[in-house]
Amino acid sequence: MTTSSSTSTKPLPGHNPYFKLGGKDIWSLINETAAAAEQSGKKVVNLGQGFFSYSPPQFAIDAVKRALDVPLNNQYAHTRGKPNLLKALAKTYSPHYERELSTDEIQVTTGANEGMYAVFTGLLAPGDEVIVFQPFFDQYIPNIEMTGAKVVYGKISPPADFDKRTVTGDEWTIDWEEFENLITPKTKMVVINSPHNPIGKVFNREELEKIGELAIKHNFYIVSDEVYENLYYGDFVRIATLSPEIARRTLTVGSAGKSFAATGWRIGWIIGDKEVIPYVTAAHTRICFSTPAPFQEGVASALNEALTNGYYEKTREEYIHKYKVFTSVFDELGLPYTKADGGYFLLVNFKKN
Amino acid sequence: MTTSSSTSTKPLPGHNPYFKLGGKDIWSLINETAAAAEQSGKKVVNLGQGFFSYSPPQFAIDAVKRALDVPLNNQYAHTRGKPNLLKALAKTYSPHYERELSTDEIQVTTGANEGMYAVFTGLLAPGDEVIVFQPFFDQYIPNIEMTGAKVVYGKISPPADFDKRTVTGDEWTIDWEEFENLITPKTKMVVINSPHNPIGKVFNREELEKIGELAIKHNFYIVSDEVYENLYYGDFVRIATLSPEIARRTLTVGSAGKSFAATGWRIGWIIGDKEVIPYVTAAHTRICFSTPAPFQEGVASALNEALTNGYYEKTREEYIHKYKVFTSVFDELGLPYTKADGGYFLLVNFKKN
Repeated sequence: MTTSSSTSTKPLPGHNPYFKLGGKDIWSLINETAAAAEQSGKKVVNLGQGFFSYSPPQFAIDAVKRALDVPLNNQYAHTRGKPNLLKALAKTYSPHYERELSTDEIQVTTGANEGMYAVFTGLLAPGDEVIVFQPFFDQYIPNIEMTGAKVVYGKISPPADFDKRTVTGDEWTIDWEEFENLITPKTKMVVINSPHNPIGKVFNREELEKIGELAIKHNFYIVSDEVYENLYYGDFVRIATLSPEIARRTLTVGSAGKSFAATGWRIGWIIGDKEVIPYVTAAHTRICFSTPAPFQEGVASALNEALTNGYYEKTREEYIHKYKVFTSVFDELGLPYTKADGGYFLLVNFKKN
Repeated sequence: MTTSSSTSTKPLPGHNPYFKLGGKDIWSLINETAAAAEQSGKKVVNLGQGFFSYSPPQFAIDAVKRALDVPLNNQYAHTRGKPNLLKALAKTYSPHYERELSTDEIQVTTGANEGMYAVFTGLLAPGDEVIVFQPFFDQYIPNIEMTGAKVVYGKISPPADFDKRTVTGDEWTIDWEEFENLITPKTKMVVINSPHNPIGKVFNREELEKIGELAIKHNFYIVSDEVYENLYYGDFVRIATLSPEIARRTLTVGSAGKSFAATGWRIGWIIGDKEVIPYVTAAHTRICFSTPAPFQEGVASALNEALTNGYYEKTREEYIHKYKVFTSVFDELGLPYTKADGGYFLLVNFKKN
């Protein structure tokens, strides 16, 4: 017997060359900087990651605890999702969609991250192109590339003088001609994110209609990452609700982690056309098989209670208050930033010279 | 607004052609047969899927409930795994490995299924070949093929007269010449499963040494699916413990679902060389980002308690008893089967004419 691994020098078989180690993502960089500052005795509040410092609402935790006492809830859930959660999601979203959503249009996923990965895996094939707008949430890129598809980079651009003044998310815009020029016969999908991480932009109806129009014209899917759907401070339009033709090609991503401060529970969902969802289900079944069962029961209860107890409204008010406190610091310092219309992000407006 | 989705007839953009719908896996077939029989008023016990009818041990459930009361435990876990769980796994496996395992040699995964998928994704590239022995656990195949690698089918064969008499798992053997003939310069990996689903075979030391010898000679990885590691009725040898050279190229798969009757918690782990585990971590981070945090705390407590409270031994005794009751029915009917040396499977010996 040996006392440690890796004692030999013979090279090991290779790995997947896609995964290059040693590079650091934005979270590693920020978390390490914060940790180093803390170790040197400084008081540090790390605001780098969307990490809640408080628990999910007590009614959700209690529902998980009750679920744990039922033997069946501790075993494999249905790969599509537990019936209680599917029903609660249909009930929650039907008023937004202004029609009765069927549970056939919903797939429960092991977090929104795995949900998006399941959408990409179920729909994309090598050679397909996916348009992603810069700036973007960093997981999109590997999750698309791992399927063999190619990312084509679009842009959401701020006004030219954004480093001189505080702007709103709405002032960050897409150049439609530039966007349409990126579309090729290989374009299979466009990914949008509203409320946007990290801009805080909430796409307005006109912008969403334009994206939908192009999706129909060029026959591609729209993946709409709406995990911050309950944190918006003005209007919020869901692209899937604009028209049946847009809805058919839209996969909308939701997250219990973001909506109920439960990022460690790993419960998300995809809403889409009942002809398309089975491909997401097929991919999800192979990736994760099923999603943690007791948390599905907990989130089902949370969704049902939140429909009547004002939870979303209260959370929104709290965030509006916190955001005001937070931005007042930047106002006082005279640091220009982008005022979020949704989400809990604050992008400091800065131009690299 | 429309009243249902899919009202238009214009074809939707295509999907990933890998996922063909309409086919049925073995679980769908068995579950539907059982459901149909139940609906016609028959009393049915569906033994098709490895689905526990009872809860995880109370000490594990209590640990999850305690974890839920700590805000941090409801948020993203470290992508590598929560420190408590990594430590409990190192403590649990060190005696088996006869050395101090480091937490650098362990990756916590969202179930053993996602763990294997993360191993395949982290290590395999398109064009690589992976040898899988028939019969096999069905998820291996898509999980390998989704990376672009190719499955090469080996065989574990029963004795010629196995349909005439009850045999033991040990009587199912690999033809070593046949196996070595499958190995090419593209062979990146072999997948073994011990205790074996569905044969119930536990690979003996000689067999594992032979596989290890070939892995060193031809420089490939061994993925050893040992999720039934606590259910064996004679000896159980772990291939990673045979020699340092074998250990370096072995990725061992474990499952809290199987060890603690908690298949719905989705907690698994991979043990491997500290130079190889980072590629599993990289893939896991992109697939799932992190694993449900409160269940990691629950499983950490369960592993620690099980080290001293005789849980594994008691479970094993219960299974030996249940298996005796179960097989006595087949003995009485004179139906030949393969007597499992591990796991909870019973393979009826049957030749298709």
